[in-house]
Parts: sequence; C-alpha cells; structure tokens
Amino acid sequence: MLQPPRGMNDWTPDKYYSLINIANRLSTVAESFGYSAIETPALEHFEVLKAKAGEEVINEIYYLRDKAGRELGLRFDMTVPVARVLSYRRDFPRPIRLYYVSKVWRYDEPQFGRFREFYQFGVEHVGSPTVQSDAEVLALAVKALEAVNLPQLMVRVSDRRIMDQVLEKLGINAARDAVLRVLDKRGKVPDEELVRLLVKEGVEEGKAKYLVDLAGVNTPIGESIGELRRLGISDQLVNYFESLSKTLTHYNVADRVRLDLSIVRGLDYYTGFVFELYTDRIKLAVGGGGRYDELLRIYSGEDVPAVGFAIGIERVMLALGELGDSQPSVDFYIYPMGPEQYGVGVRIAENLRGMGFRVILDVGKPSLRSALEYASKIKARKFIIIGRREMENNMARVRDLETWSEEDVPLSRLLKQ
Amino acid sequence: MLQPPRGMNDWTPDKYYSLINIANRLSTVAESFGYSAIETPALEHFEVLKAKAGEEVINEIYYLRDKAGRELGLRFDMTVPVARVLSYRRDFPRPIRLYYVSKVWRYDEPQFGRFREFYQFGVEHVGSPTVQSDAEVLALAVKALEAVNLPQLMVRVSDRRIMDQVLEKLGINAARDAVLRVLDKRGKVPDEELVRLLVKEGVEEGKAKYLVDLAGVNTPIGESIGELRRLGISDQLVNYFESLSKTLTHYNVADRVRLDLSIVRGLDYYTGFVFELYTDRIKLAVGGGGRYDELLRIYSGEDVPAVGFAIGIERVMLALGELGDSQPSVDFYIYPMGPEQYGVGVRIAENLRGMGFRVILDVGKPSLRSALEYASKIKARKFIIIGRREMENNMARVRDLETWSEEDVPLSRLLKQ
Repeated sequence: MLQPPRGMNDWTPDKYYSLINIANRLSTVAESFGYSAIETPALEHFEVLKAKAGEEVINEIYYLRDKAGRELGLRFDMTVPVARVLSYRRDFPRPIRLYYVSKVWRYDEPQFGRFREFYQFGVEHVGSPTVQSDAEVLALAVKALEAVNLPQLMVRVSDRRIMDQVLEKLGINAARDAVLRVLDKRGKVPDEELVRLLVKEGVEEGKAKYLVDLAGVNTPIGESIGELRRLGISDQLVNYFESLSKTLTHYNVADRVRLDLSIVRGLDYYTGFVFELYTDRIKLAVGGGGRYDELLRIYSGEDVPAVGFAIGIERVMLALGELGDSQPSVDFYIYPMGPEQYGVGVRIAENLRGMGFRVILDVGKPSLRSALEYASKIKARKFIIIGRREMENNMARVRDLETWSEEDVPLSRLLKQ
Repeated sequence: MLQPPRGMNDWTPDKYYSLINIANRLSTVAESFGYSAIETPALEHFEVLKAKAGEEVINEIYYLRDKAGRELGLRFDMTVPVARVLSYRRDFPRPIRLYYVSKVWRYDEPQFGRFREFYQFGVEHVGSPTVQSDAEVLALAVKALEAVNLPQLMVRVSDRRIMDQVLEKLGINAARDAVLRVLDKRGKVPDEELVRLLVKEGVEEGKAKYLVDLAGVNTPIGESIGELRRLGISDQLVNYFESLSKTLTHYNVADRVRLDLSIVRGLDYYTGFVFELYTDRIKLAVGGGGRYDELLRIYSGEDVPAVGFAIGIERVMLALGELGDSQPSVDFYIYPMGPEQYGVGVRIAENLRGMGFRVILDVGKPSLRSALEYASKIKARKFIIIGRREMENNMARVRDLETWSEEDVPLSRLLKQ
C-alpha cells in the first residue's frame, strides 16, 4: 500500500533530476527546430480517446465515470489530445509545430521498460503533407536522442502505402489491418508461424510466404530505391523514398536509418511513413512515429496532413544505464550557534540565495557535530558557522566540506553590500 | 466534445509558456532554499488518499477501479503522496526539503479560479518541529510569490493549538473539527449565523459569541503577542509566536503577515501553525499551508514533524492578470527556393540551431509570398531566402521581418566554419 500503484514510479530527487535533465535536453532540440510546448488535461472524454485508439489500446485505457456520469479516460498518448485541440483552435497558422513532455497512462502488463504511467517526449507537425516535413520530424527525433547521448541509435523506417500497394497487386482483399498486425510480430514469432497466421486471415499460402519475405526487407535507406523498384512499388512512392533518403543525408542522419518493412506501429491512426527508434542497449523501441493524415478529420471534419513521433523517456533512461544522482548540490549550509546569531544567519542565507546559490539554513536544534554530519550526508559544499565570538569580530567560520579546511571570513563578504 | 472535460484546461503555447515561466520562477526560489524536486504518480491507491483527506475532499476525489479491481484515485494534493513516499524511503537524511510542480485533481464545481485539474507548486519540509522551519516555509512561500511579482501579497497566520486551548478553557467538548469548520466560514457568512451554527453544534450561546469574536482577531504578527496573552494562551505558544514573528522579521517578510484567527484551512491533517496567502487582486487564497505533525504516522507508524504549503499556479496567473503570449520567438525562417537549394537550407538551419537559435526550415511548397506571410504571422525575426542566383554567388538574402530591410549575407557566415 505504501508503494505506488503497480507499474507506476515515484520520482524521488535522486532519480527525478535525471528525468528532468533528459526531458530538458530533448525539449531544447525541439525548441531549436521552432516547435512550441503544449500540454492538455490528463483526462479526456472517453469518446475522444476511443475514436482512434485501435482495439488493443482501447483495452488499456484507464476509464472512469465522474460524479456527473461523464465517461472519461486517462490519455494514452498526446497525439489524440493535440488533434482534439487543433480541431477547435483553427486560428493557429499552419503548419503548426508542437512538442510535449507529458505523462500518459496505459493499463498494460508491467515489465522491463513498460510502465502504466510513463513520460513521453514527442512532436506533432500539423498542416504539411511533404516529404520534407517527414524528414524534419525524423531528423528531430534522431538529433534529440543524440543530444542525450543515446548509444547505437538506429531508425527503422517503413510506409503503410508500400504494403497497401503490395496487397493490391496480390489481389488480397483481407483486412489490411489484420495482415499488418500479423507482420508486426516478425522477429518475435517464427516466420512459419506468421505464414500460418496469415493463412488464417484468408491469405493464400504462396502469397502469405511472399508477404513474410517482404516483411524481411531490411536495407540502408540509401540503398532502398532498388529494393522498392524490384517490389513494383509505384514511381511516386519510390520518388518519395528517394527524396526522404536525400533529405536525411542533408541532415546527416541517413546512416542511422534503414528501410525495414516489418515496421508497422500499433496505433491505427498512421497512414503513410512510419518509423521506430532503437538502440542496441534495450530490445524495446525507445520511440516511434509517422504520418497520420486522417486523424484530424475525425475531430474537425477537415483533412489535415500531420506527422509526429513520441519517445518514451523512461526507456531512454533504461538505455542510458546507471545515471547516478544528478541532484544539484547544496552550496552552503549555514549554522548559527544560537538564537542571537539566527538573524545574521537568515541575512547571509538570503544574500547568498539572491546570488544564485543553493543555501540551507539550519532550522533545528542539532548539535554542531550532528549538523556537520547531516550537511556532509546531503553533500553540501561549504558549512558556515556563525558563533558568538566570531560575530563579535564580524567574522564567520567557513568550512569546506570536501577538503575539510576552515577559514574565517568577514561577515561583510557574506552580507549584502 | 472537442473541448477539454469540464473544469480542465488545454495549455496551448500562447498560455503554456506563461505557466512554465511562473513555475520556473517559483521553483528557482525553492531550489535556492535547498529544496529538491519530487514527483509521484497521478494515481494513488484510494486507501492512501482516503486516510487523511477529510470528508469534503474525499467526495472530490476522481475514483476508479482498474481492470484488476484495484481501487485508485487521482491525487488531490501532493502532501499525501509525499508522506507515503517518505514512509518507505527512510534512507533520506532528515530534515528533508522537497518541492513540486504537479497537477492535482478535484471534482469540485468549476468557477472563477477553481478548476478540476490544476497545478500546485509547493514544498514539504519533513523532520523538524521547530519554529525556524515554520518560518522558513512561510518565508519561502512569500519569496516565491515575490519572485513572480504577485501584487499586494498578504499572509494570514493562525494556529490550531490556539483554538484548542480556548476550547479547553471554555470547557467545550463539542468536536473541535465541527467548531473549526463553522469558524472557517467567517467573512462569508454573517456573524449571527455563525453563532447559530455553533449553538447547533452544542456550544452555549455566550461561548459561541466569544468564539466568533475570537475568530475576528486580526492583527499584524508583530503586535500579536499582547493579543495572545489577553486570550490566556499558554506561555509556550506565546513564545512560539514571538519567535515566529522575530524570524519572519529577519526574513524581511513580517510586514506582510497578520495573525488572523479565522484561518482554519480545510484539510484535516494540519496540527499547529497554519497560513493562507492572499493578494487583493482575487478573492480566493492563492495558497496556504501549515504544520502536519501527525500525517506521516498514518503511513509509517512513526511520528515525524512536518510543515509545508501549496500554491495554486492558475490562481497566481489569474491574480497577475493578462500575461500576453510569452512563447519564445523564432529567430530564423529559412526558405530554399527549390529542391536544389534544400541541402544548403538544412545545413544553415542545423548550424544556427547548434548556436542556440530557434530555426524553422520551410517544408512545404508555399510560394515565397505565402512563406513570408506565414513567417510574419508566427513572428519570426529573420527570413533567409536561398535562391539559385544567390547560391551561385555564395550568398543568401536575409530579410529582417521587423524592419523589412534586406541584405545579402555570405553563405560562409551562415554555415559551419
């Protein structure tokens, strides 16, 4: 009962500052690309969430009825709430570049890297249909992860239109979504099993084998053009990939990007370009995204092209390994020896705080010895003793808690001029 | 349906940066006092929340059962979650100084300054029973609100022990909590009505009138000692107020503080010193806090003295009035005239981003005219045109969107050396 609910984390300072530092570095990259921060309520109308969650995700929504009987749910991502907001804020000039660092909630089985409450950093780029906006969003994701020094970053790119064209060519009328869901399992499930599952969905065995082979296509983005031509993909789409590859080269990120046709992405709202972000440090993707040109229509009735991604911050932290305690240190611990010295203690503390230092003023009745012990434990740098005798000489004693050296410092140097 | 749930806010960038700025300035003050940031899950076990919420607040909890049947609730404050965390993190050296900027949720009737989801900035100072820690926490609250320039800040201080002593002297055995709840209404309800309500709680009319008069005590903290002596309050408590007043004078905040015996605070967990923060700009308190020496016992079985406060950030924003749009501006908007110029555009953008600028690179196929219009609308400062002819001369054209002046700048100045 004293622990947080299952699958959720208490962020005590020893861990929380690492999260804040990572979130800030990711955000700085988004800001540098001209993206602006947004936040929405944790709770959404359940109808809004349901409209485009996809079956699997709907079952993961924390659902409640408020006291007026409203059906609400905790958001499972930020793409849906942002789409809702933009449906009534049509005054924002487009394209709109937004980013967020937000908590989301999914009722999923907790395991390594999978939490029921977690932080997402992500962007939404709304209002542009171009390959340049796809490339910008992917480059931003890579640059953000480079900014936190994520090792061995790899991006796997695919496009829902490729499989659509292949399925059309094969004359497969089975539900596209069902086929994609099967192929999404590639790598986790043996290929023969995938074939069997496709056959179960109504795909002929020969075509099923072809599709499973296809999902095995995995080539550097720079060499993907030949592969796509071989598959008989339309010129338009091949040109798209050629431009994508070229633009990513300009961004100096193309060497991290591979065309991988097994990439599907779980969320039903993607319509074109999709990608996932990996590091060799953990098996799970640290993030992913893609183009969702039809999501906004659900809320606004208007066709609005859009592309975005989300990165799981806890997964980035797992991939980075032991981050240590990154709390800012306490610069000064001030210890007035008695009540007569307290006023001077307050004034010194306030002066040093005004200069930007982190200052703790002793509030207890601990002995000097136990105050010193405490100050060492919390890793304060300097310990200022204000004693009666020192004060009479207009001095305070300053002990360096790292070197354990002491000196008497004139009060005038510690107090406001 | 497209609006956020009732009583909740979408934080679009035009408002969100104001919130972030205010939260950062409040946090900076907490950091300067040596407080460290903490965060906990939005959801808590309902049992944990219920244990010390007080009847009124329990009814305001957003309650749900998860799919495993767990009873959960959205936190209504951060004091309870922090108390829970500290009950199992006994390794932190005490006193512990923590602060937070966190969302909390209360199902209350929305009205001016009252939201169902809102942000609290607050601190918890856990492990010290002294008047110096009370003074530190109050001073921190005042300094934080001064740091955001909240006008006409006033603090009303009281102490639950005062009323306890008075009730004991009067020989009133009626439930203390019921009496306090009635007196808390002072100012909102006529005094005669308060007397009637107290009589209803079993208090004799004469004593009821005395209590209502008492709740009218309102005097500068510096002049409160005489008043408290007159009431026959114990020497110990009078000395406490004398020290409090003196320490607040050292902090240079005493002139903002009044003893006001009508201050009760709604949450049941307070045990001693309580205070509320007001500005003359709005009627509602912008925050409040006090000492809660018994809360941690509920979770840890251990008596741990503690004091803290919370400030409602939205209320601070309302009190500050129109804050305008404080989004950081876009420094450069880069417009490559055609695909041949795109690579140079990317390289210039990346270089300027690396220098700390906010840079948007055009991704669309808008005409130069519509790109210029868009860049003006989003208040970009400079517009860089990369044309074929300019590139041949190793130049780009830079237009200042404020003065509308143009100059040709060598590409070498815009690209990495």
